Amino acid sequence: MTTTPLALTMGDASGIGPEIVAAAFARGALPGGFVLGDVAVLRRAAALVAARERVDLPVAVIGSAADALTMPPRCVPVLPVAGLPEGLAALPWGRVDARAGAAAAACIRAAVRLAQAGEVAAIVTAPIHKEALAAAGEPYPGHTEMLQAEAGAGPVRMMLANGELATVLVSIHVSLRRAIDAVTREAVLETLRIAHAAAARWGQPAPRLAVAGLNPHAGEGGLFGDEERREIAPAVAAARAEGIDAQGPFAPDTVFMRARRGEFDLVVAMYHDQGLIPVKYLGVEQGVNVTLGLPFVRTSPDHGTAFDIAGRGLADPASLVAAAAMARRLTGA
Amino acid sequence: MTTTPLALTMGDASGIGPEIVAAAFARGALPGGFVLGDVAVLRRAAALVAARERVDLPVAVIGSAADALTMPPRCVPVLPVAGLPEGLAALPWGRVDARAGAAAAACIRAAVRLAQAGEVAAIVTAPIHKEALAAAGEPYPGHTEMLQAEAGAGPVRMMLANGELATVLVSIHVSLRRAIDAVTREAVLETLRIAHAAAARWGQPAPRLAVAGLNPHAGEGGLFGDEERREIAPAVAAARAEGIDAQGPFAPDTVFMRARRGEFDLVVAMYHDQGLIPVKYLGVEQGVNVTLGLPFVRTSPDHGTAFDIAGRGLADPASLVAAAAMARRLTGA
Repeated sequence: MTTTPLALTMGDASGIGPEIVAAAFARGALPGGFVLGDVAVLRRAAALVAARERVDLPVAVIGSAADALTMPPRCVPVLPVAGLPEGLAALPWGRVDARAGAAAAACIRAAVRLAQAGEVAAIVTAPIHKEALAAAGEPYPGHTEMLQAEAGAGPVRMMLANGELATVLVSIHVSLRRAIDAVTREAVLETLRIAHAAAARWGQPAPRLAVAGLNPHAGEGGLFGDEERREIAPAVAAARAEGIDAQGPFAPDTVFMRARRGEFDLVVAMYHDQGLIPVKYLGVEQGVNVTLGLPFVRTSPDHGTAFDIAGRGLADPASLVAAAAMARRLTGA
Repeated sequence: MTTTPLALTMGDASGIGPEIVAAAFARGALPGGFVLGDVAVLRRAAALVAARERVDLPVAVIGSAADALTMPPRCVPVLPVAGLPEGLAALPWGRVDARAGAAAAACIRAAVRLAQAGEVAAIVTAPIHKEALAAAGEPYPGHTEMLQAEAGAGPVRMMLANGELATVLVSIHVSLRRAIDAVTREAVLETLRIAHAAAARWGQPAPRLAVAGLNPHAGEGGLFGDEERREIAPAVAAARAEGIDAQGPFAPDTVFMRARRGEFDLVVAMYHDQGLIPVKYLGVEQGVNVTLGLPFVRTSPDHGTAFDIAGRGLADPASLVAAAAMARRLTGA
């Protein structure tokens, strides 16, 4: 069935990344998948999972991405990344460490190279830690920016999706005041173009895109703000002129409910919490983060390194498993 | 069981108000309830509902609120409001009319007088139309402001609740930019005080109040905005010093999910859509609007006059029924 390998990155070695990757393999939930990372780190994580779930969970070192297709289920295939720092598997759990940050970054770079070479269907990234990345001297605040730069991509957007709702965000990690400033005709139109093009890549050539307003009741005809008239509606009109099935701006407090009921395929949200509150409302376990606008498919679980529970055998791999399933669905592989 | 009458207002006569009130009585869903309104308008609405649902639905004119307690189920008890304009029952459906606005306002005033006299347990208001109210020369943009003024109340807040989530809003119908400006230490503290006091009135003396942040990740330590540090956290601290069980500010994208799972009783939301998106996400039918800070209980359905479907027998009374049930629950009557 699976004809193209799926690359997972191990994430920050001090967080729950290696643990949830190992747990997902233990459940047989990652056919054709393999981890880019450090063998000793994955052995430590696999031992933790094996003890908790009372199963055997061997770690198998592979020599190429293609080898992942021939691996038996319920083992952890690792493609070692060259040049990682020494001693990663001895790092204490739940602490920021420059070595963990450097290793996490190296794994992401390796994944981008494999995706660009067509050796993997998609990339699923385990959580990294912003401060560890900075401590390692990396200039990127997170995955999205790093992937965009490493892939030499144009503008990208974050999509968050679960089984019933998918939302694409005009802006992400900025204050609400700056997010309002970022609601420009150009940014909304760019978001619509990226969402439309991404959907076509995953086999949905004419997605029904709903655009949320910025203000209560989408401004109530200009009474509560004019961004809808000034910026959002012109962007929707421009997108429609390009053949994109965009509608709106709609009242933010009901557009997500309407999409959940099937009226739209995707909702373009004007700011971080507008889109993330509804996607996360029914539970974060199923939330999957997808970066749109890259030349390949990249998904990730919708949670962080969870330093508070790392190494304790408590981390739930559900969101990572959902991210891998989403990656498979989006690539049709 | 029911020992105190429940007053419903008929709302705008040209909208779905009279129709959903009649439909709720037809279902036997309003024991002890009665309508403040125009007898002919309610007869027109009852005839519509009777024809649609193939039932008998008599309208009974009563002489006092107390009479509602002795009425048989499945009739529409109406306490006529004096001085209403002539010809209300001949108004076309779905059009703004100053007479409908004036009548709607008179019914609300009558309801406030009954509540202040202790003759009713609570008020449930059917939808009114902002423009009709203005056409009638009323200075109020909506129910909330009118009730506050008529009752001579101090600051009030809107709560929106369904079976699983209750959220109280710091501000409502202003642009998002102005809503950010309205997130002051005083406004957040006032909201916490109002929510705490209201919960005590409905028999929950120590409600667990979660306070949402304003910015993504509640500002991520000041990285994405400083309103959390400058305004919200001091308000939470001040509330705690007064003995209010307030916690936060929490990341907005997960605080509602956490409340839904039972971690908190109420979430204080910083702006309209932050609170309303999650409450409405699972469907608007169950959403109930509650005005906190009044000297009596007032609830309403979470929808408007729906002029587009008024008079066509399509309006769903579910939210009104939920509003009446909530009013009963909040008064313990």
